[in-house]
Amino acid sequence: MKIAAVQTDIHLGDIDRNVARLAEGLKETARNGATLTVFPECALTGYCFPSLDEARKFAQPVNGSATEVLTAVCRELGVYTVFGTVEADGDRVFNTAILLGPSGLLGTYRKIHLPYLGVDKFATFGDRPFAVQNAGDLRVGMNICYDSAFPEAARSLTLLGADLIALPTNWPPGAECVAGYVLNARAMENAVYFAACNRVGTEASFRFIGRSRICGPDGSTLVTSNGDEEEILYAEIDPALARHKRVVRKVGEHAIDRLADRRPEMYAPLVEPHSLPRPGDRQVTV
Amino acid sequence: MKIAAVQTDIHLGDIDRNVARLAEGLKETARNGATLTVFPECALTGYCFPSLDEARKFAQPVNGSATEVLTAVCRELGVYTVFGTVEADGDRVFNTAILLGPSGLLGTYRKIHLPYLGVDKFATFGDRPFAVQNAGDLRVGMNICYDSAFPEAARSLTLLGADLIALPTNWPPGAECVAGYVLNARAMENAVYFAACNRVGTEASFRFIGRSRICGPDGSTLVTSNGDEEEILYAEIDPALARHKRVVRKVGEHAIDRLADRRPEMYAPLVEPHSLPRPGDRQVTV
Repeated sequence: MKIAAVQTDIHLGDIDRNVARLAEGLKETARNGATLTVFPECALTGYCFPSLDEARKFAQPVNGSATEVLTAVCRELGVYTVFGTVEADGDRVFNTAILLGPSGLLGTYRKIHLPYLGVDKFATFGDRPFAVQNAGDLRVGMNICYDSAFPEAARSLTLLGADLIALPTNWPPGAECVAGYVLNARAMENAVYFAACNRVGTEASFRFIGRSRICGPDGSTLVTSNGDEEEILYAEIDPALARHKRVVRKVGEHAIDRLADRRPEMYAPLVEPHSLPRPGDRQVTV
Repeated sequence: MKIAAVQTDIHLGDIDRNVARLAEGLKETARNGATLTVFPECALTGYCFPSLDEARKFAQPVNGSATEVLTAVCRELGVYTVFGTVEADGDRVFNTAILLGPSGLLGTYRKIHLPYLGVDKFATFGDRPFAVQNAGDLRVGMNICYDSAFPEAARSLTLLGADLIALPTNWPPGAECVAGYVLNARAMENAVYFAACNRVGTEASFRFIGRSRICGPDGSTLVTSNGDEEEILYAEIDPALARHKRVVRKVGEHAIDRLADRRPEMYAPLVEPHSLPRPGDRQVTV
């Protein structure tokens, strides 16, 4: 099967324009044979709202009219898509990724890792466990942007059965290392496909660096953008390869297994709560 | 402070020769100002023993004569070293790393992640928790070779306070991705120094690829070997940089924190026991 990542500009607060851009992108990638298309983080809404009130004004319910429009496109074309939005849930807003298919809403993911200070300051911390959804025969796990700097995120999705991790992202300058090698490590260590779609353009004081990338389960780069212009990436993937965690170096003599060789009984430090200081403005209180 | 990695050949079962090689390496790196020197995995003993009986014959107690010789060198020069050995413990053998300093044995680490089949087949699974030791002012965590393919290993050491992770390794062909980008990801995601020392030469059917590398807490490569010849790498490190987990992008506006931004309450899948099949010959029963 073929997947795509639509590296594109997003217009802050212009929902109609952004929905139209996503619909147009979906039609183009479907024409080129892609059955799953990934768009950037907050692709419906834009990202850098100047206040919580502004973010609330443009935040979208996951079952709102924008989702309906895009579901209709998925149904017409028989395809799936992952894209980001600022999600409205009562007075709270989340940085959320949505998986849609021909039958409608298949899953949502609320960004779990938020930066210490600054961007995302109006978002509430993701409050639901990592989960994997089926997009046809493909098991999709969603992470968003900064999640990829935490190996726990992709690892959790892998342990829950993901074949592919879709990463809508808004990488600014400084994230080159993530685009440049961290994704490859995530794909390799988990033996999964990893499809990161970054946006381009600027918003407020933020510039976005493009460099979207799709990696294979051996850690190789299947396709990458080397620039910060609009661009669509395509890759052929085979979910069966991501379900085979064993790497045989010499038949009968030497093999490794990315999951069976784990030693979870030794990993207690990973789940111990930490009591590190956090600034008071990190989490929205409603 | 300066650290070193001595990428060198090891002779299978020739303990006297290997101890002499390590002593000579330590003297050379100390002459060049290094206070911590890392050697390869199983550097005292060699690695690919043809049977458990052969491995037992050459396995070393951690407080044996080889350790005494090397401790004397550390004491004379006022330096620290990490090196690998096949460790004898009753009838069992472990693939172990040892940290020595002027005062003697500071810590040992028994390799926790063993390949599914083949190499290491005579070793018992590491049975002690990850731990960090002080080498003077530097907090050292030890991993060995294949551990680096599991993000849980370096992460656990980081959470236990490591400034630097020392990785004695025996990378064969096929481990190029680890040498090439996984180490950088480990260093970046944990904001620690990562010093990997591989061996060169061949043993039985195994060839070792060199490509030792030392990475900094921002994920950058401080120094690397691009080949499979004997070579010594040096890097200046500052433990204080590895204790500062916060990356400030714009003062007062945007910052991330490699540890404080973790969400351990969401990581339950990481420590759930798995029931994946393992071949019967994986673990030595005594």
